[in-house]
Amino acid sequence: MNYFSSNFKLGILGGGQLGKMLLNDTRKFDIYTCILDDSNEAPCKIASNEFHLGDLMNYDDVYNFGKQVDVLTIEIENVNVDALEALEKEGIKVYPSSKTLRTIQNKATQKLFYVDNHLPTAPFSRFAYTSEINEAIKNGGLNLPFVWKCAQFGYDGTGVKIVKSLEDLEGLPNVECITETLVPFKNELAVIVVRSVSGETKTFPVVEMEFHPEANQVEYVICPARIDSSLAKKAQEIALNVSNAFNHVGLLAVEMFQTQNDEILINEVAPRPHNSGHQTIEASYTSQFEQHIRAILDLPLGRTDSKVDGVMVNLVGAEGFSGDVVYQNIEIIMNMNGVTPHIYGKKQTRPFRKMGHVTIVNENLGDARKVAEQVKNTIKVISK
Amino acid sequence: MNYFSSNFKLGILGGGQLGKMLLNDTRKFDIYTCILDDSNEAPCKIASNEFHLGDLMNYDDVYNFGKQVDVLTIEIENVNVDALEALEKEGIKVYPSSKTLRTIQNKATQKLFYVDNHLPTAPFSRFAYTSEINEAIKNGGLNLPFVWKCAQFGYDGTGVKIVKSLEDLEGLPNVECITETLVPFKNELAVIVVRSVSGETKTFPVVEMEFHPEANQVEYVICPARIDSSLAKKAQEIALNVSNAFNHVGLLAVEMFQTQNDEILINEVAPRPHNSGHQTIEASYTSQFEQHIRAILDLPLGRTDSKVDGVMVNLVGAEGFSGDVVYQNIEIIMNMNGVTPHIYGKKQTRPFRKMGHVTIVNENLGDARKVAEQVKNTIKVISK
Repeated sequence: MNYFSSNFKLGILGGGQLGKMLLNDTRKFDIYTCILDDSNEAPCKIASNEFHLGDLMNYDDVYNFGKQVDVLTIEIENVNVDALEALEKEGIKVYPSSKTLRTIQNKATQKLFYVDNHLPTAPFSRFAYTSEINEAIKNGGLNLPFVWKCAQFGYDGTGVKIVKSLEDLEGLPNVECITETLVPFKNELAVIVVRSVSGETKTFPVVEMEFHPEANQVEYVICPARIDSSLAKKAQEIALNVSNAFNHVGLLAVEMFQTQNDEILINEVAPRPHNSGHQTIEASYTSQFEQHIRAILDLPLGRTDSKVDGVMVNLVGAEGFSGDVVYQNIEIIMNMNGVTPHIYGKKQTRPFRKMGHVTIVNENLGDARKVAEQVKNTIKVISK
Repeated sequence: MNYFSSNFKLGILGGGQLGKMLLNDTRKFDIYTCILDDSNEAPCKIASNEFHLGDLMNYDDVYNFGKQVDVLTIEIENVNVDALEALEKEGIKVYPSSKTLRTIQNKATQKLFYVDNHLPTAPFSRFAYTSEINEAIKNGGLNLPFVWKCAQFGYDGTGVKIVKSLEDLEGLPNVECITETLVPFKNELAVIVVRSVSGETKTFPVVEMEFHPEANQVEYVICPARIDSSLAKKAQEIALNVSNAFNHVGLLAVEMFQTQNDEILINEVAPRPHNSGHQTIEASYTSQFEQHIRAILDLPLGRTDSKVDGVMVNLVGAEGFSGDVVYQNIEIIMNMNGVTPHIYGKKQTRPFRKMGHVTIVNENLGDARKVAEQVKNTIKVISK
């Protein structure tokens, strides 16, 4: 099929910042793109050829949208999978597949998938309700401390809590959940794997992540990770195995822990462009977004190595500010070495909301990291 | 003024491929952008916040559009300058200025500007009508061969002809024109200078251009130019002097000849993003398009040096094909090392029409140049 003609239609479920960055590449290739999102203020409202209003969790909205396109992809996991399954049966190409999404949407089935496929991950227990956890602790079936995770619809750190004492369980929603052994780790790493329809695969360099203590959101992404090459190779191999195990098509971001004794344990995956790959826009020969388009259209994949080193800083809403957003001191950071701000175009800020990111590239990673710290200490996402 | 809010409006005259690439960066910074173009099929129809239909040469269309924005810029020189002058008087910021555009729009006044400012350019004569040229030759006031250029509205090689004999004059339009001494040169070079509202200036590396023999359009742009550094420095200084002489704001692309004895002569300039800077998207720390936005909004300029070397190949319509465009073998070139195609989104192709470009980046310029040749010999812009 000739993708480079308007007879072809690509559909994207979700019109947020990931979709917006994907649109830069569909525009670059002049690929006709349709977006489904429930907000008229979605960052993808412009730059898409067609913008459709609808609920991503609603069967009819997703089904009716999907029927109009040739290839359907996502920029967020929380979509109606039954609709995707129906569309697949009717010959629409859906990447990632409904099967993969179903497995990933539920953290319990995602963990079982790793176990079934002999992929390394931290030990865990599964509970139908949070209320069952007390019982398990009492009869010695579970030991403190552990990480509590709700099975479904967690996003950006919501639905995750470190439980050190029984009191920490209070106030948690009484939902399907897992408890994961708290593994002391040196580093959180991530590898983005891209796999095309015909099975061509490539891995991006391993990145290292630093999290914000309260918000549990990524604060810095450092590319390449400052780890030795044998460990990096191991992390890339594991990520590649995950992608192959899913027979995945498109991007798969694999988040991992580097334990104290340099084991690699899979934390979780995202089957789409990912926050840990934003620096690829400026640092890599091919950005994660372009690679995703290439993969789902079964075009040849581009180079995944880096032109230069990069550090990414998330721009999240400052605590204590809600309302019309203001990017305080953005002019100042734009005067720093190798700095590119990306503003997502959300009109309203609130504490810890992802409003944009800043990429810092440099021939020298240490210099980029220093500038990243200055950026973080200078720009502030506040309200009018 | 806070550019990063929708209270601010940036206006762009022209909705072609240069505007389309500018929109990638206004989108990245979430800057509210309005486009004026006379075609509903303009590449900028989407991705702009507001698209206005109108004639760029019509006073009222340009004036009424300009009244609605805070800063007005161009992506093509052929616009109604009287309207820009009126808008300036009413406090709209217009970059480039009407004065600069007036000088540049007419090749005769542009050449006189270089002479008045002691900027090196080839000797020339000015004629009110092409018909006066015969007379000048007869009475010895002008010697063959020379380059004939119509004074106004030449674009992409139209309105330029090398005249070796009187016969070559036949069929030329009888318009205001100049005749330029035919200077034997080694290379055609270009330097893009960026100058901000507050006068901060930076120059991109010197690039080397190879032209298509018939179409007189750039075929390869090679960055950096394969010339020695002292000559490169000289070319950058001359380009910088031109930008300062105009008190220019925004990008200025300065096309130059390197003569047999390594003199640098200015050929012509373009006060906007330019074909000789497309490779900056992939090769440079900051693309020419982002620099233009930074400059006209008086933001700090980014780095102009390169991450890697680059070669740019124009995708022009193949001879003998007109109609609905097809990019034959695009999948094959996307499998080559460091290749990124840019498709402008024009639905109809015709011989030599600029339909897109391909950038090839590599750590090694020689390798990029080899791939560029393969790209050129593989992809073909034809019609259905």
